[in-house]
Amino acid sequence: MIKEIQNKIHTQIPMTKLMQVELKTLDDIKLITTAPLNININDKGTAFGGSLNTLTIISSWCMAYYISKKFNINDSSIVISKNETKFLRPVTKDIICNTFVPQKDELSQLKLSLDKKSRGSIIINAQIVEDEKVCVNFKGTYIIKKV
Amino acid sequence: MIKEIQNKIHTQIPMTKLMQVELKTLDDIKLITTAPLNININDKGTAFGGSLNTLTIISSWCMAYYISKKFNINDSSIVISKNETKFLRPVTKDIICNTFVPQKDELSQLKLSLDKKSRGSIIINAQIVEDEKVCVNFKGTYIIKKV
Repeated sequence: MIKEIQNKIHTQIPMTKLMQVELKTLDDIKLITTAPLNININDKGTAFGGSLNTLTIISSWCMAYYISKKFNINDSSIVISKNETKFLRPVTKDIICNTFVPQKDELSQLKLSLDKKSRGSIIINAQIVEDEKVCVNFKGTYIIKKV
Repeated sequence: MIKEIQNKIHTQIPMTKLMQVELKTLDDIKLITTAPLNININDKGTAFGGSLNTLTIISSWCMAYYISKKFNINDSSIVISKNETKFLRPVTKDIICNTFVPQKDELSQLKLSLDKKSRGSIIINAQIVEDEKVCVNFKGTYIIKKV
């Protein structure tokens, strides 16, 4: 499933390929994604804030896409409606992002909304971590529509 | 000044060059920046949320850099500490971003802090607009340090 999603974003969202976003693993807890430092570097030799935010945005989008597939929705339109991002520490190595599977009650609520109204929204949390410290905290709201 | 800033970011932050970010004009009110739709497109044929957020982040960084130069700070370290972004409408054409010069009292406060403590923070607002409608609303906090 994650290779399919990676192919989809690399083909349809060229910036994710240029940034070299990779989907590494996905389990019941989280999706792990990465992007190399070298292409995503800034003037200070650390990771560029725009790349950090983009990695959290696309990883959370991938999570929403994965959820829609788990709900057996073949065709969906998934868009971000808002996000809040805190940059706590500079990232000095290749970028690693943990994107968390939402809680069961949040997923049930989304499913109910999708069944009733063919659309629903969900909050996705992601963190960029380095040496077990959180460098970036992201909270994004995504709208999923059946099309 | 804006060509100098554009050269700086294209040289030191490779993603801004890959995204084809351009600084167009700067006056007392705002900085206008652009990025083409084709390289910044998503699976829906509209502008990718990551690119939209990155354009607001780098444009606001450029505004903070410009302010530091106006304050005669030769060497500065400027980092984003947090942002809130609302995606109100899809962007269907080349992306245009307006980044607003902060109010005079906010600039005075920043100047005071930089003079006293060699560091200060400022909130920068940016909007992505299309056909005179706001598509993205961004508020970012930047920390400027003399180095």
